[in-house]
Amino acid sequence: MGMVGGGRGAFIGSVHRMAATLDGEIELVCGAFSSDPERSRASGSDLYLPENRVYANFEEMIQREKELPEGERMDFVSIVTPNHMHFAPAKMALENGFHVVCDKPVTLNLPEALELKEVIARTGMLFCLTHNYTGYPMVKEAREIIKSGKLGEIRKVIVEYPQGWLAQLLEATGNKQADWRTDPARSGAAGCMGDIGTHAENMAEYITGLKITELCADLTTFVEGRRLEDDGNVLLRFENGAKGVLHASQIANGEENDFNIRIYGEFGGLQWWQMEPNTLIYKTNQDGARRIRTGVGNLSEAAKAHTRIPAGHPEAFLEAFANLYRNFAYTLKARMTGQEPNPLYTDFPGIEEGIRGLAFIDTCLASANSNEKWTKLVV
Amino acid sequence: MGMVGGGRGAFIGSVHRMAATLDGEIELVCGAFSSDPERSRASGSDLYLPENRVYANFEEMIQREKELPEGERMDFVSIVTPNHMHFAPAKMALENGFHVVCDKPVTLNLPEALELKEVIARTGMLFCLTHNYTGYPMVKEAREIIKSGKLGEIRKVIVEYPQGWLAQLLEATGNKQADWRTDPARSGAAGCMGDIGTHAENMAEYITGLKITELCADLTTFVEGRRLEDDGNVLLRFENGAKGVLHASQIANGEENDFNIRIYGEFGGLQWWQMEPNTLIYKTNQDGARRIRTGVGNLSEAAKAHTRIPAGHPEAFLEAFANLYRNFAYTLKARMTGQEPNPLYTDFPGIEEGIRGLAFIDTCLASANSNEKWTKLVV
Amino acid sequence: MGMVGGGRGAFIGSVHRMAATLDGEIELVCGAFSSDPERSRASGSDLYLPENRVYANFEEMIQREKELPEGERMDFVSIVTPNHMHFAPAKMALENGFHVVCDKPVTLNLPEALELKEVIARTGMLFCLTHNYTGYPMVKEAREIIKSGKLGEIRKVIVEYPQGWLAQLLEATGNKQADWRTDPARSGAAGCMGDIGTHAENMAEYITGLKITELCADLTTFVEGRRLEDDGNVLLRFENGAKGVLHASQIANGEENDFNIRIYGEFGGLQWWQMEPNTLIYKTNQDGARRIRTGVGNLSEAAKAHTRIPAGHPEAFLEAFANLYRNFAYTLKARMTGQEPNPLYTDFPGIEEGIRGLAFIDTCLASANSNEKWTKLVV
Amino acid sequence: MGMVGGGRGAFIGSVHRMAATLDGEIELVCGAFSSDPERSRASGSDLYLPENRVYANFEEMIQREKELPEGERMDFVSIVTPNHMHFAPAKMALENGFHVVCDKPVTLNLPEALELKEVIARTGMLFCLTHNYTGYPMVKEAREIIKSGKLGEIRKVIVEYPQGWLAQLLEATGNKQADWRTDPARSGAAGCMGDIGTHAENMAEYITGLKITELCADLTTFVEGRRLEDDGNVLLRFENGAKGVLHASQIANGEENDFNIRIYGEFGGLQWWQMEPNTLIYKTNQDGARRIRTGVGNLSEAAKAHTRIPAGHPEAFLEAFANLYRNFAYTLKARMTGQEPNPLYTDFPGIEEGIRGLAFIDTCLASANSNEKWTKLVV
Repeated sequence: MGMVGGGRGAFIGSVHRMAATLDGEIELVCGAFSSDPERSRASGSDLYLPENRVYANFEEMIQREKELPEGERMDFVSIVTPNHMHFAPAKMALENGFHVVCDKPVTLNLPEALELKEVIARTGMLFCLTHNYTGYPMVKEAREIIKSGKLGEIRKVIVEYPQGWLAQLLEATGNKQADWRTDPARSGAAGCMGDIGTHAENMAEYITGLKITELCADLTTFVEGRRLEDDGNVLLRFENGAKGVLHASQIANGEENDFNIRIYGEFGGLQWWQMEPNTLIYKTNQDGARRIRTGVGNLSEAAKAHTRIPAGHPEAFLEAFANLYRNFAYTLKARMTGQEPNPLYTDFPGIEEGIRGLAFIDTCLASANSNEKWTKLVV
Repeated sequence: MGMVGGGRGAFIGSVHRMAATLDGEIELVCGAFSSDPERSRASGSDLYLPENRVYANFEEMIQREKELPEGERMDFVSIVTPNHMHFAPAKMALENGFHVVCDKPVTLNLPEALELKEVIARTGMLFCLTHNYTGYPMVKEAREIIKSGKLGEIRKVIVEYPQGWLAQLLEATGNKQADWRTDPARSGAAGCMGDIGTHAENMAEYITGLKITELCADLTTFVEGRRLEDDGNVLLRFENGAKGVLHASQIANGEENDFNIRIYGEFGGLQWWQMEPNTLIYKTNQDGARRIRTGVGNLSEAAKAHTRIPAGHPEAFLEAFANLYRNFAYTLKARMTGQEPNPLYTDFPGIEEGIRGLAFIDTCLASANSNEKWTKLVV
Repeated sequence: MGMVGGGRGAFIGSVHRMAATLDGEIELVCGAFSSDPERSRASGSDLYLPENRVYANFEEMIQREKELPEGERMDFVSIVTPNHMHFAPAKMALENGFHVVCDKPVTLNLPEALELKEVIARTGMLFCLTHNYTGYPMVKEAREIIKSGKLGEIRKVIVEYPQGWLAQLLEATGNKQADWRTDPARSGAAGCMGDIGTHAENMAEYITGLKITELCADLTTFVEGRRLEDDGNVLLRFENGAKGVLHASQIANGEENDFNIRIYGEFGGLQWWQMEPNTLIYKTNQDGARRIRTGVGNLSEAAKAHTRIPAGHPEAFLEAFANLYRNFAYTLKARMTGQEPNPLYTDFPGIEEGIRGLAFIDTCLASANSNEKWTKLVV
Repeated sequence: MGMVGGGRGAFIGSVHRMAATLDGEIELVCGAFSSDPERSRASGSDLYLPENRVYANFEEMIQREKELPEGERMDFVSIVTPNHMHFAPAKMALENGFHVVCDKPVTLNLPEALELKEVIARTGMLFCLTHNYTGYPMVKEAREIIKSGKLGEIRKVIVEYPQGWLAQLLEATGNKQADWRTDPARSGAAGCMGDIGTHAENMAEYITGLKITELCADLTTFVEGRRLEDDGNVLLRFENGAKGVLHASQIANGEENDFNIRIYGEFGGLQWWQMEPNTLIYKTNQDGARRIRTGVGNLSEAAKAHTRIPAGHPEAFLEAFANLYRNFAYTLKARMTGQEPNPLYTDFPGIEEGIRGLAFIDTCLASANSNEKWTKLVV
């Protein structure tokens, strides 16, 4: 693996590195960790990389790695830069024969995402988008329960993503994370809805297997001086007639990363909460609530395949993130060894999820500026 | 107290009786418990009432009680019938010199409520509407915290009322509660939004002290054959610029009576959950979450005045309900003895809350039938 | 009902009154509320009792009430005084033809309890001991589950009763509750173990249906100047070979009234917590945890018979307490009308539970003073 | 790092590998993964190790690695075998110039542990014992709060470690984990108390900074045919006069890995639960409960130094385990580069904790077989 971005002080870069290497299937072999060559070099040194595999920029990395003999050069690129820097390295990597893992949202805007889809199709390379929250075993279990039909027809979905960290104008204090995430040039046309709203949208569609078809959004910038919206409330309608609510916030003062989802069908409901991720609650009018737990009892193959350690030894954010990398690695390995990939491990998000995410952002923005009640989400 | 409705098999009648008499301030002295005189008589007998104080209907009760000497006759009427039977007994009672406690929504529709307001003003009698959930000590505490300014400007309100009991067509099975609550003639123009949505609206306005000014509603009847909506998702806007989400459901399979509210201000957030009502969570980015608990530490006078027993001895639904009756009784006693009522005890909902509830219902219905994004809530 | 004790400022007196009258089956008709006649009179006036039914002391109350015509006089006495004042009024009431409800521990010491047992047997009157925590529906459900054999042989019981209110020398500050509860003359030979340890012992035996046969206790007085122990840790052994731990504390700073029990059998475990009393957790290795909830689904007859309102409308401390009074009232009514009592309602604690409680206290004290590991609990 | 044990199918081996490599500070370079050379080779191949660094046994590994040039050979050995195979490889590694990380309990019995202490002292090598649960940030925070004196004198400690996985005779079904853990020859003289009781003992002493001085244990083998005890209840006394309860179980049917601790001091209490490890509850009589959360607000340096990602992105078992390895690696690096180690990172358990663990086991066993109430824990 070669990494683009993720130098010293970047939060998500080290997350990707820990997630990628957790299972011993992936090794970090090179990187272009910063647009500042000095910083890139220092970061590479922190990571015990040889100097000649630390590059000044992604172009250099891709070119030089390509010149290395097969088996020595990186197999894929992991892109962990701010959103405006996803498209160019992804495209170049793919066109030069490197597979790609990319943070979300996939690109700065929808046109880039659509072009990237074309590049992926043309080159035939693997592409993984790190909608990491779908990597949790209990998310897999929820999806399997719904697939099995136990809940019957899905009627209602409530998906929430409240955070509080931007309740004040943090971007004015030199906070790097706040700075780029509230800057349209680097983050894209949306703030809150791009950064976390897309996770909520992706989760709702992933677990239910249903597509959102139209929505009604009320977006707000609560903090004075902020350039992007920091809060959004959205009514949802799904393809099967199900209704829903999605709300996300960066100004929900006191909330950490309180992502959660509830889904109600004819015969029961499910509830999952990211901050206590090893519990899935399954409720019915008849039997009350059951706590389905990672590693306990007779779970789906999908849940078991994404669990490493026995019940009661909690696995959490990094392990779920690692599940995406491991699945990507297994699928890549199958391809490299000419084998059929195990379908349990081909379950990782890709360009389609990225496109839906950007379409969701655009639809929210369009709705927020419209007097029409419903705006269709079309890709 | 004389009771209208609440005969054998009625859920809410016995709740009112237990709540009214809990503190030893109110005695049930008579009743017209059913439109069926035989059933009324049987109910009165169950309640150990003398036969001559059990009436065939509310008209008879009001007339006969009025003829009794002061001190012997009932002081007020408690109306616990289905919604279509609120207005007539309330009006007659008030006009014959009896104070009134009435279940919510206050009347079948807004015009009745407005007329009732006029009757109350004209007669000068006391009127209490049993939006019982505002009787919880931790709800009082939440309101006081917000009043104190600790949260700063309120930015976001999430209020939820999911129930699952009508996930199937229960009204077709002979269930009395389901029967009248899904019948427009007895319940009013709304089902779910009238029965529980109004509690959510009332709670949001009560705790924050802010009025909802416009909303956008998506109402659905999920269960085939049902005559009123059984689910609603609503975007809210408040007078101060705060935004919100209110959703209520009777088809959230597996949910009991999962009423809860979260409120976020500039400096922190509050969270309260009816099913574990003695905990109020107060969160800030700086200090994490504090569990404020009924009876523990330095609470507001309002919270303390609505608590009966020491911390850790949970008080719940009936005690909160009883707080409304007790406050009504104290206020009535002050009036009857010519004293100034203690402002701690004049805190019970009345006709204004009833009117806002019906206006909320009407606005939701109008919005649900409109292509306009926002519908104003005006009284 | 006539009450002994429970005058102004007494915590438990008002609890008993609310509990007794909640269901409309019992009426407070007289009382001797305080050893101070003036205070007794004032308390009676607060309670709207006629002056001639408020007595200067229990002897007067019992004598005078006995002289009243049947149907007018009280049917039973409720004794809510400190422990040293249980025996005399109970004995006198029973011997004068009044049934008795009495707070726990039943008497100041075991010899009194054994004598009271003899009085009860001789007079044939009804006697109810308010081990109120066994009145919760989910406690009934737990007992029924174990009776049904679903857990198999019981192996382990953990019962805890931590409180924090006596973490400082509160009795030196004029706190009445602290004062008598830490005074051997009024409380008995034990402090913490008498006040709350006996609830824990009673709960463990009630739910499991098993008797404690021997124990090993470590009792401590942590707060300097206190006259009775304020903390105790006890190893338990049960008649069937099950093992257990019971610990209770009044110095667990920060705890309210955190009574809870866990029971493990061959095939699963149960967990119940008084501060969220409507949930019973049922765990198995195979299926994870199920939340059994008051009012939800297919519960035992015993649980249903002790529930008043629908699921999700929490019932709590007073309602559980009221279940004892209501059962007592139903059983008394059956006797007074010559009917067979419904066995669902004869389930209330009596003198046997009181005797075991005092034996438990004595055994703990003996063990605490012994170098022997195990001390037998014999009655 | 070279590993001893942890071949295919071993649970704890892969845990150690993930934990060791998580932060990119440690690389697995060689191993003797199984006493079966074929199995060792296959395991090495799974781990992408070169064939010549996969050894048939630990003796070979230590000898051969020692012959490699510095900088190429392993720096330390990680021992993850069953308990009876800790001492020999640890001793040999230390005496041949390799530092050691070792799973707990440190050796099969106390004499081995005391000898190992002597070897460590003689060789001057680093030794880390993986009492992994002390690696959690909220455990560090608890320890710092107590150190700060905020709780005042510690009065009571409740530490619990219930598991349910051995509720049936699992060792008769071919389960490898159950097999060796219930075999005295491989596990040592205790079952449950050795495997998990020692974690509880270590945690209680680590957080409070207090030593257990005497105890009273009741140990039981509930499952017929089992060779070691599967349950234990223990009364504790600490050096400062604090009292405590420790109970551990492998037959608490339905429990996963429910390790938790509560500590009460004069001025407040703390509560931590391994299955939701990012929350530390801090309770006082005055202010109710505060949820201290990993990454939120103003935490101790110790807590912050053991946290990788922002609040609300849960870190769990592997991350806590990794904190031990990372601290060991930092301390080792400091030594190798001749620098003073950062005291934040020298916080990892060593031989002293190992010796106390074995002394605890021996004292429990002695107490269980004694009629004396108290048995002193002496090292």
